[in-house]
Amino acid sequence: MSSFQERLIHSMQKNNSLVCVGLDIDEEKIPPFLFESSQDPFVEFTTSIIDETKDLVCAYKPNLAFYEALGSEGDRILRKTIARIPKDIIVILDGKRNDIGNTAKKYAQALFEELHGDAATVNPYLGIDGVKPFLDYSDKCSFLLCRTSNPSARDFQDLQINNEALYIKVAKTIKKWEEFGCCGLVAGATYPEELRTLRKLMGDNSPFLIPGIGKQGGDVEKTVKYGTNEDGELAVINSSRNIIYASTGEDFAEAACKETTWLRDIINKYR
Amino acid sequence: MSSFQERLIHSMQKNNSLVCVGLDIDEEKIPPFLFESSQDPFVEFTTSIIDETKDLVCAYKPNLAFYEALGSEGDRILRKTIARIPKDIIVILDGKRNDIGNTAKKYAQALFEELHGDAATVNPYLGIDGVKPFLDYSDKCSFLLCRTSNPSARDFQDLQINNEALYIKVAKTIKKWEEFGCCGLVAGATYPEELRTLRKLMGDNSPFLIPGIGKQGGDVEKTVKYGTNEDGELAVINSSRNIIYASTGEDFAEAACKETTWLRDIINKYR
Repeated sequence: MSSFQERLIHSMQKNNSLVCVGLDIDEEKIPPFLFESSQDPFVEFTTSIIDETKDLVCAYKPNLAFYEALGSEGDRILRKTIARIPKDIIVILDGKRNDIGNTAKKYAQALFEELHGDAATVNPYLGIDGVKPFLDYSDKCSFLLCRTSNPSARDFQDLQINNEALYIKVAKTIKKWEEFGCCGLVAGATYPEELRTLRKLMGDNSPFLIPGIGKQGGDVEKTVKYGTNEDGELAVINSSRNIIYASTGEDFAEAACKETTWLRDIINKYR
Repeated sequence: MSSFQERLIHSMQKNNSLVCVGLDIDEEKIPPFLFESSQDPFVEFTTSIIDETKDLVCAYKPNLAFYEALGSEGDRILRKTIARIPKDIIVILDGKRNDIGNTAKKYAQALFEELHGDAATVNPYLGIDGVKPFLDYSDKCSFLLCRTSNPSARDFQDLQINNEALYIKVAKTIKKWEEFGCCGLVAGATYPEELRTLRKLMGDNSPFLIPGIGKQGGDVEKTVKYGTNEDGELAVINSSRNIIYASTGEDFAEAACKETTWLRDIINKYR
């Protein structure tokens, strides 16, 4: 078991939680009053949510697209956000990066060294030489896109290769890449049967990042039963919009806390 | 033909060139003297190269990983670099972005609105709903990864689906996506037979972004013969390291100019 897996289990046990809060800041959705009352509305938004939920989660997942869409300011907001996350909670930088080897090395450097992420999401389409530079960071984890949560995941991921879907081939290949470093899997809660198959295939030491509950419609009970390992652990269950936009009033952080508590508890009920 | 395709053809005709210069800034490779002589070494590096080569190329391709690896400074350097590129030369932002729909929309906003790219590279693994937000920008182009230039492209892209490789299935699907907007294809020069197949399949209106000549070993003659359309156009042939690191002395920009001229001319010989 890698040091990342140990740290993830530690954060899950410390807060008795598999919940990951996705920090997808969106200027059209964050509480409008913040733009009037705050000098730094986005940072106040993310840090308030972190402060209210940090004892209820195992991880936070800043979604880089939302920060990049804010231009240079987004970079500052992202760094302030990451800095607020307690050291014993996992930071998953969700950028779905990928490129050929010498470029992938730079992305890994950006995410793991510049931004101090504990883990990153990585697209596997380019094969091992685009993934290995991420895996070379032995204390980090790369969550590889396998079965994504969106409707058109089927476009390519379901293509049949000798009676096996592409996403299964991808998972089997990722299983082999474990010799190079810590490989996690992204498997959407919106496809519970696929999630079950993938957990069986990957075994009990593989960290899963599971998006798709909440707004995207994934079922919590199935997600927990099919996504966790035999100890009811190593499934990082992400919710973004349902939690962080639970209220757009002045009680937004308390509402996020309440929603996180509810999700943590219902997940724990099924573990 | 989209306005992007017209602009690309215009830039190709204006400079009689299919060359794209890849701006992969790397602190270990840029001329060391710049760190002593310049207040702003990276910007001086990229802008000097742009100034010397701008009449010899159809496009520039900043590779976002290299800027992100420099942290907040990288964002400033990227913006200064893009600002120096003449308006009638195409800017391809190479980030290989991809995500589910609502997130992909933010990436498209970041690349096309915040950074003013004319085109972007996009990974297709998530299917159409992760790609459509890019295609919704009707005057822009999304170059979709199809056959990448790296050795392990084969890991997944060669998997056989009913006797057809995955990259062919990807290309056929991209062909259908043309109804939503301007789809280009990334097809590596390192796989010339695949390149030929893809040009036949996509037809003469499809812009190709072709990396992999130079350091990666792709053959120029085959790249030109197989990658261009019937008019000898719409193939954007990228070279990065061979051009921008042609010299690490004070003559780096002149050396880049010389290398670009050589490449432009040899490409034109085969058109």
